[in-house]
Amino acid sequence: MAALIATAINCSLSAKGRSSSTDAMIAVLAEHFAEHDVKVGKPIRIAARNVKWGVSSNEGPDDDWPAIREAILAADILIFGTPIWMGQISSVAKLVLERMDAFLSETDEAGRMPSSSKVAVAAIVGNEDGAHWASSQLFQSLNDTGWTIPAVAACYWVGEAMGDVDFRDLPHRPRKVTETAKMVTANAAHLARLLKASPYPG
Amino acid sequence: MAALIATAINCSLSAKGRSSSTDAMIAVLAEHFAEHDVKVGKPIRIAARNVKWGVSSNEGPDDDWPAIREAILAADILIFGTPIWMGQISSVAKLVLERMDAFLSETDEAGRMPSSSKVAVAAIVGNEDGAHWASSQLFQSLNDTGWTIPAVAACYWVGEAMGDVDFRDLPHRPRKVTETAKMVTANAAHLARLLKASPYPG
Amino acid sequence: MAALIATAINCSLSAKGRSSSTDAMIAVLAEHFAEHDVKVGKPIRIAARNVKWGVSSNEGPDDDWPAIREAILAADILIFGTPIWMGQISSVAKLVLERMDAFLSETDEAGRMPSSSKVAVAAIVGNEDGAHWASSQLFQSLNDTGWTIPAVAACYWVGEAMGDVDFRDLPHRPRKVTETAKMVTANAAHLARLLKASPYPG
Amino acid sequence: MAALIATAINCSLSAKGRSSSTDAMIAVLAEHFAEHDVKVGKPIRIAARNVKWGVSSNEGPDDDWPAIREAILAADILIFGTPIWMGQISSVAKLVLERMDAFLSETDEAGRMPSSSKVAVAAIVGNEDGAHWASSQLFQSLNDTGWTIPAVAACYWVGEAMGDVDFRDLPHRPRKVTETAKMVTANAAHLARLLKASPYPG
Repeated sequence: MAALIATAINCSLSAKGRSSSTDAMIAVLAEHFAEHDVKVGKPIRIAARNVKWGVSSNEGPDDDWPAIREAILAADILIFGTPIWMGQISSVAKLVLERMDAFLSETDEAGRMPSSSKVAVAAIVGNEDGAHWASSQLFQSLNDTGWTIPAVAACYWVGEAMGDVDFRDLPHRPRKVTETAKMVTANAAHLARLLKASPYPG
Repeated sequence: MAALIATAINCSLSAKGRSSSTDAMIAVLAEHFAEHDVKVGKPIRIAARNVKWGVSSNEGPDDDWPAIREAILAADILIFGTPIWMGQISSVAKLVLERMDAFLSETDEAGRMPSSSKVAVAAIVGNEDGAHWASSQLFQSLNDTGWTIPAVAACYWVGEAMGDVDFRDLPHRPRKVTETAKMVTANAAHLARLLKASPYPG
Repeated sequence: MAALIATAINCSLSAKGRSSSTDAMIAVLAEHFAEHDVKVGKPIRIAARNVKWGVSSNEGPDDDWPAIREAILAADILIFGTPIWMGQISSVAKLVLERMDAFLSETDEAGRMPSSSKVAVAAIVGNEDGAHWASSQLFQSLNDTGWTIPAVAACYWVGEAMGDVDFRDLPHRPRKVTETAKMVTANAAHLARLLKASPYPG
Repeated sequence: MAALIATAINCSLSAKGRSSSTDAMIAVLAEHFAEHDVKVGKPIRIAARNVKWGVSSNEGPDDDWPAIREAILAADILIFGTPIWMGQISSVAKLVLERMDAFLSETDEAGRMPSSSKVAVAAIVGNEDGAHWASSQLFQSLNDTGWTIPAVAACYWVGEAMGDVDFRDLPHRPRKVTETAKMVTANAAHLARLLKASPYPG
C-alpha cells in the first residue's frame, strides 16, 4: 500500500491568532488519515496569504495562488476546510473555488483537468447550522472543477440553533464526529488509491 | 388596529400521528402573533390532503390544492412550516412551492400576482442542521411567486450536528427561539398591515 | 471489460403524456454510456408510481418504493434525472432522496450503506436557470446516502433567463451537452468499474 | 412623494477595466428606479476597495468597509449586484454579507438592526445558470441581517447552459429583463416609502 499525500486548506476568515475550529476539524481527519497511510501537510491558511480575486491560475506578480495551487495539485487528496458564516461556506472558500474555475480550461490532450483522478473531502465547522448547505456548495463546485467525491465525504460539526459554542472548545470530541471521520478517511484513501493506480482515461 | 389573519401550512412528511415538531414551531409563532392581533388558523397538514404534483392551480377533480390555495390567499400572512430532511426543505414543501408557481401567470390587470401585498414567514425545525438552506429555498421561491419577506422572517430550531432530538420534546423552549419569534411576528404583523392599507400599485 | 448496468430515474412532475425533456437528457447519457458497455434500463417515471412520503424503505402495502429501491440497488450506476422547478430539483426528486435517507440505518457489518461502491450522476433539464443548484442538492444528498460522485457528474441544459424552450424541442443537440455527456459517462463507467472490482472496505 | 436614495454595490471580481455586466444590470434598475423618484448613486465597486475579511463593522485602520457601510446605511434601498461564478454569488458578494453579519449585534434599544426598515433588491448576471441560487443566498443572508425583501426582488439575466455571452454585450435588452426591472423597482420603491414613513416598531 503506497503512501498518499493530502493537502489541507483552511478557509477561515482569520489570518492568524489562536487556533481555529476549522484547523481542529482538519486535525481530526488528519489523525484518521494517518491510519490509512495518508500524510496530511500543515493546513494552508488562505486568509494569511495574498490570494487575488479572479478566475485564472495567475492574477499577477503578488498573487500567492500559484504556489497554493501547486501544493493542492501535488497531493492525491484535498481536504477542503471551511467555517460556516450565515449558513454558507466562507467568502475565502468561495475565492478558492473561483480560482479553481481555471481548471476547466487547463485540460490535457485527453480533456482531463489538472484535478482529474484526485479526490476531495470537506471539513466543515460552525457555531450553528449550515453544514449541509456548505457541503452542497463545495461538492458541486469541486465536482465541476474535476474532483471526485468519495462516498460520505463531509466531516462536520455545528452546535444547536443560534448557539455560540466553538468546535475547538468542546470538552470532548463528539462520538458522531469520530465515526464520520473514520468513514470519510477510509473511503477517501481507498478511492484515491484506486484512481491513482487507474486514472480516468478522459 | 385591524385584526389580521394568518394561514399556517405544515409540510411534514407525516399525514397524521402524534404531534409534529413543525406544528410546535407554528404554535410558537401563533402565540406571539396573538399579541399583535393576528389570528392564526389551525395548521393545514399538506401530507394529509391529496395535493397533486404539478405547476397549475388545479390538477383535476381529486386535487385538494384549490381549497388549500383559497385558504392561503384568504389570509394576510402565510406561515410556511417545514421540517428539514437532508439539510433541505421537505418534498412536501417543494410541492407546495411548485403549485404556487401558477401565481406567475395569474396576474391582475396591474401585473400583480394573487399573493401580492401579502407577507410570508418561515417556521423551520429539524433534528440537526439545515435551517439556513431551508429558509433560502423558501425565501427565493416565495419571493418569486409574489410574497413579501419581512425583516427577520425565519423562526427555526435545529439540534447539534447529527443529533436526534425533536423540537417538540425539548424540556423547555429555548430563549433564542422565543426572542426570534417575537421579532418575526412583530415585523410580519407590522408589514402586513402596511401592505394591506397600501397595496403595491403593480 | 465487464458490462455494467445503470438504472435511470425520471423525477418529472408528470406521470405520463408526451415525452419529457428529462427523458431526453437521460437518453443522451444512455447513448454515450453504451459506448462504455453500460446498459441503461428504461427510465423509471417516479410520478407514475405510488411512492409514499417518508424516510423509511417501506411505507406500507401500497408503497411502490420498495420495487424502485430494488431496481436502483441492482445497478452499478444511478442516473438521477430531474427537471428544474423554481431553480431547484423537483419535489418528486426530493421525495426520492428522502426515501434513500433510510440507507443511513441499513449498513452492513462493515458500516457500509446499500449504495456503497456505486456511483451516481445527474441529468438535469429546465427552461431556464437552476442546474447548478439542482446538482448541488443532488450531490450533497446522494453523497450523504452513500453514493460516490465521479468527476464531472452533471449533464444539464437550461435556456436563457426567463425563457420557455424545452430541451426536447431543440432543433439540434447542443455541442456542449454532447461534450459533457461524453465526459460524464466515461468517468462514471471508469469509476464504477474500479469500485465494483475493489469495493470500499468500510 | 418624497425622493428616496438607493445605494448600489457591484460585487464583480474585477477591480477595474471595461464596464462590467453587473454594472449594466444595476443601470437597468437605476433607469426604472428614476421613474419612481429613487436616486441611485454610482455603484460601489467592492473589489476596487480594501475590504478586509471579517464579521465586524471595522477590521482595522486600512479597512474600507466602514465607509461603504455608511453609504449603504445612508440609503433607503440597497441594490445588491453580483456576478455568478460556479452557479453561486461571487466571493466578493459573500464578503459583503459577512461584514453585514455585525448588524446582528448592533441593535438599538428596540432590538432593531441598522438595516431595519430598509429594503434590498438583487441585480444578478452570469454567462449561464445560477440566478436562482444566487438570489436564494442573497435573500436569506440579507433577511437574516435585517433587510426586508419586496415582492419580486431579483432582476437577473443568464445565457443558455454553458454559454459565454455577457449581458453587457447583448445586442438589445431582453424584454423579460425590462418587465422584471419595472416590477422590481415599482415594488421596492413602494415598500421603502411605506417603511420609511412607518418603521418597524421592533
